[in-house]
Amino acid sequence: MKSEVKRYLSNIVEVLEPRLEALLPDETETPASIHKLMRYSLLEGGKRVRPALIMASWEICGGAFGDDRPVLAGAAFEMLHTFSLIHDDLPCMDDDDYRRGKLSAHKAFNEALAVLGGDALCIYAFECLANLGNLEIIKEISRALGTGGMIGGQVVDIESEGKRVDRSIIEYIHTNKTAALIRASVRTGAMLADANEITLQHLTKYGKCIGLAFQVVDDILDEEGTTEQLGKDAGSDRAQGKATYPSICGMVESKQYATRLVDCATDALKPFGEKATVLRSLAEFVRNRVS
Amino acid sequence: MKSEVKRYLSNIVEVLEPRLEALLPDETETPASIHKLMRYSLLEGGKRVRPALIMASWEICGGAFGDDRPVLAGAAFEMLHTFSLIHDDLPCMDDDDYRRGKLSAHKAFNEALAVLGGDALCIYAFECLANLGNLEIIKEISRALGTGGMIGGQVVDIESEGKRVDRSIIEYIHTNKTAALIRASVRTGAMLADANEITLQHLTKYGKCIGLAFQVVDDILDEEGTTEQLGKDAGSDRAQGKATYPSICGMVESKQYATRLVDCATDALKPFGEKATVLRSLAEFVRNRVS
Repeated sequence: MKSEVKRYLSNIVEVLEPRLEALLPDETETPASIHKLMRYSLLEGGKRVRPALIMASWEICGGAFGDDRPVLAGAAFEMLHTFSLIHDDLPCMDDDDYRRGKLSAHKAFNEALAVLGGDALCIYAFECLANLGNLEIIKEISRALGTGGMIGGQVVDIESEGKRVDRSIIEYIHTNKTAALIRASVRTGAMLADANEITLQHLTKYGKCIGLAFQVVDDILDEEGTTEQLGKDAGSDRAQGKATYPSICGMVESKQYATRLVDCATDALKPFGEKATVLRSLAEFVRNRVS
Repeated sequence: MKSEVKRYLSNIVEVLEPRLEALLPDETETPASIHKLMRYSLLEGGKRVRPALIMASWEICGGAFGDDRPVLAGAAFEMLHTFSLIHDDLPCMDDDDYRRGKLSAHKAFNEALAVLGGDALCIYAFECLANLGNLEIIKEISRALGTGGMIGGQVVDIESEGKRVDRSIIEYIHTNKTAALIRASVRTGAMLADANEITLQHLTKYGKCIGLAFQVVDDILDEEGTTEQLGKDAGSDRAQGKATYPSICGMVESKQYATRLVDCATDALKPFGEKATVLRSLAEFVRNRVS
């Protein structure tokens, strides 16, 4: 099962990387510095989980093999995810020096360029999304990114630093900061394939559950992983007084919760039967991932 | 002529402000802090030149009175413009303490919230644009904003600080940093009204010329205006060693250049005859504005 997911993810990477490479302006194009930063931050990094979810969701909804649209959507999601990481790492935010095993953008370049490079990736993503030819998807993703989604979660995350918060706040942060965009990636794949409303509801439940599971596991890894495994500073959540599941509920309960969420995601896939093998394996992958 | 433009602009403000007010989440909505920042930065500020250009361009192309789309487009452009101002004012960028006569966003709130508030305004703008129902306009605006437009101009602007640059660099900065979005606003009004290719070409030339004129006048005002008149720190360009027209070409030539650009803009309006009164007056307004 595990090697099957790895194969799926590496296939995604194989299709996605040249597409990202071609979508971004060349390093020699003026202004060269920001193009270097964008390529440095976006290329050759990350597990590409969101593009994999888009593709698997597209396939389960009957999307045809070889269609470029789910790949383009995956590229846009990786740009958006990277935009959020670059801004999150800034000194005025989480102040993280490492990301994906190398210096974060503002350390490798400078702060001004990191702000603008993040902005540019966000804008490029919307250009890619416009090229998908589907306005509903642009609305869906804007909502997932805005203050009722990812940005909202990031605001509450920062404002909760060093405070004793209750579980409902953690739930709010993770539902918005991480799960909103993961949920949107699952929905985007289905919307591209013109899924019906009932199918979309099942996949939305799946997306929300694995989105939350992803972040709970992230919290656990931050406590238990090494900097080398994670590609970023281990233990940085605790050092910054971040509101995390382990800090509120303890490690045992956090692991149980991650398992419950993955079960809930798998449960939502029942109506799809055998067709859901990849999405089911991706949920398992989220539970078992090392970084 | 002058009072006619003022009436036009104040009519735009009267229609636009309640629309912006309604589009933004309420201050009481979670997370309240970022919604406060977004409203603080966006509402009751600015001359709303871009929405006026959209509306005038829409009207000259036969767009019907009372259609909501040019107003919604104007709202999106003001969100995008404000997003760029908030990020430009950050300490790692231009480090400006005042904007539109009040403390800039990172001074009135904090840096993290200013980065995220700018991000959120950019994302909200794309949601508004998606609601216009025209994918070509989203592509147009993404290109105007990206590294081949506004962001590209801002990068070169920052990287030219304190350096002796030649006129072609200044031209590059201003064409991209300021004129690209102004040109896009004129084109958006025309595209919304389904203008034909020739009309679009004339208006594109007009938009490019007044966009550049706008920035040349901005440079002149930064030298000659007072902080009170400008609503932001006067002389800050010189203090920061910014590449400006007056610093390269001198004040006399800069003023002549602004006049030539406004003439060029007016020239592009000839085919429209009497119908172009408002766009012509807006070009004059750009030349004569005090802040």
